[in-house]
Order: sequence, then structure tokens, then C-alpha cells
Amino acid sequence: MRIVLIGASGTIGKAVANELGERHELITAGRHSGDLRMDVTDPASIRMAFEQAGAFDAVVSCTGHTTWKPFVEMTAEDYRFGVNDKLMGQVNLVLIGREYISDGGSFTLSTGVTDHDPVPMGSSASMVANALSGFVMAAATEMPRGQRINVVSPGVIEEAMADYGPFFRGHCPVPAARAALGYAKSVEGLQSGQTFRILG
Amino acid sequence: MRIVLIGASGTIGKAVANELGERHELITAGRHSGDLRMDVTDPASIRMAFEQAGAFDAVVSCTGHTTWKPFVEMTAEDYRFGVNDKLMGQVNLVLIGREYISDGGSFTLSTGVTDHDPVPMGSSASMVANALSGFVMAAATEMPRGQRINVVSPGVIEEAMADYGPFFRGHCPVPAARAALGYAKSVEGLQSGQTFRILG
Repeated sequence: MRIVLIGASGTIGKAVANELGERHELITAGRHSGDLRMDVTDPASIRMAFEQAGAFDAVVSCTGHTTWKPFVEMTAEDYRFGVNDKLMGQVNLVLIGREYISDGGSFTLSTGVTDHDPVPMGSSASMVANALSGFVMAAATEMPRGQRINVVSPGVIEEAMADYGPFFRGHCPVPAARAALGYAKSVEGLQSGQTFRILG
Repeated sequence: MRIVLIGASGTIGKAVANELGERHELITAGRHSGDLRMDVTDPASIRMAFEQAGAFDAVVSCTGHTTWKPFVEMTAEDYRFGVNDKLMGQVNLVLIGREYISDGGSFTLSTGVTDHDPVPMGSSASMVANALSGFVMAAATEMPRGQRINVVSPGVIEEAMADYGPFFRGHCPVPAARAALGYAKSVEGLQSGQTFRILG
């Protein structure tokens, strides 16, 4: 398969590249690095990258940011940041990518453990993660040309504990290589509409 | 209790008013009717209504719209309509209302059966419903001054089947009075962070 991998320079993205790169041709895309320039918050940039990618069979997104703050400090603008970036950024990958991907191609999006296990300061992450699971569940039933769509929801990543550990006290970290298996299951399996939880 | 009820003129809102009005003082709020004018897509209008409401102990929202279209016709703008209206409208009720509501007060938001049971043309409804469940689950752990927050997710409403039936083939309708019990459970019980599913 030819796979467009967005966010290949991140901790999870690198592990996904290692896992899928063994068996498939990867076209990496990112804001500042990769084979193609792509900013998921800019639909024109998504379209240009897909135009440049040539034919492809899968899109894997390891990207998206939300605001981390105590709920009492969270504003509407803070929630809108996550909606515009991690939620609509990944939704736009699908809305635009569905025109370019091959018949039977797959989309794999990323969320995280806050989809069911809320942590302090993570109310935007929980909102966006569930929004994506709901979108994927419903869109899967209506995807055109046999296309599939899933989301991978890993626990806090072991290699990122220096940065994320303080937000995820009590959580058992997941090695990035193990999280990457969820992406392989989505791309190389046949399920659709699923949230694959990879927990430690 | 004094309860601010938004969307009291709708099918579910009327049933909630009947259920809660027996035991509590209701202040109704709506875009075009009710004791107070409130447009949930306009934060200034939310704030003005809460200022005018006087002291209150609960906010019940029976409002919010999303775009219903086949997935292949859904655009980013269509998803943003539901995000701005049903999602951020109800989130803004909480973000602003948390300043005005009494200690231990409760917020009760509304979604629907598409949170777990997707229907054709309902991908935005599924996205927004799950976003609200995720928000409520996480925000509940951080609400100030003992405040609680839940969401009620009823099945398709029996009294609205003339309009909604074609979207919900195979779904067992729920009488509005039965759906209203979910709102009573949220307001008059002590649970928080829950999605109360009221299915037919």
C-alpha cells in the first residue's frame, strides 16, 4: 500500500512509521517536516498535499492539539482551539481525503485515553476524543467507494512521560511501538467505525 | 429549586416543564419565547439571561441543532454548524452559568440516541452527542463549588415521529414524558458526569 502519514515526526508518528514502513510505502506529511507540507488546520494545505501525494490507499493521522487547563480556567476560545485543530483538522483530512483515496482505502485518526478516563485539565481532550469516536462510528456507515475509517486511542505514551507524566498520574504508560499496532490493525485489517483502545 | 429551562417550547422541553414544574419554580428561556430571551449561540445573550434570572439552582438545556445530510454531502461548514450550535452553545451555557448558579447546582444538557446508534445522515449528530458526553464526563470531575453536570440522551421522541421518523427507521420511539424523567434524575438526583440514556 501507499500510505500518507501525517505527524510522522512525533513520538507516535515515528513508531507508526517504523511499524508500517516495513511493509508499505510511506508518504510523510507535516507542518514543518516530511515529504509533503501539510497544516491540518488549513483545508487548502490538506488539498494541496493530497494532490501532490499521487495515488494512495490509506491516510494515517498522528496529529492534533488541545488546550490543557483546569476546567475553571477553560474558556470558549480554549475549547475552540481543540475543535479547530485536533477535531476539525482530522475531520477535514477525511472530508478532503475521501476524494483522493483509492477504492477501499482507509482513514485512521488519533485520540487518546481521555476518551473514557478523564484527567485533570483534560476536559477539552475528552470532548475532542469523543467527538472523533462519534464521527468515526457514524461516518463509517456512509463512507463512499468502500472506504473505511477508525480511530486509535492509546494510553499515555511511555516515551513521552517526561512531558505528559504530570497530567497522567496513575496511568500505566504504553510503549509507542505497542500503540503503533493499533494503526496497523486499522490500516491492514478490515474493521471500520471502531475506536481501537491501546492501554497500558 | 429555581430552574432555568432553555428550549421549553420544544417537544422535550414541554415535557420537562411538565415534569419539573410540578415541584420547582421554572424560569423558561428561548430564542423567541419564554420568560427570558436567550440565543445559546450568542454568549452575550446567555450572560444577559442569567443576569436577569436571579438566583437559580439548576440549568436544563433542551436545545441545539445539527445538520442532517448524507455523509458524502457533508462539508466542514456543515459540521461547524452543529459545533457552534448544539455543542458550543450548550458548553457556553455551562462556562457562563457556572459563575451564576448556586453552590451544588446542576447543569443538564441534551443529546440523543445517535451517540451510540448511528443513523443515515446523522454523522454530525453523532459527533456532537459524543463530544458533549466526553465534555460532561471530564468537566464533572473539576466543577467548582460542588456543581454537577450530566447529559440526557433520549431515543427518537414519539410525539416528533412525523418529523423524525424517516431519519430513525427501526428505532423504538420514546414518549416525551418518559424522556423527561432523565432530566428529573439529573436535576433531583446526585449523580454527575453521566450520560442518561432513555431508550424506547
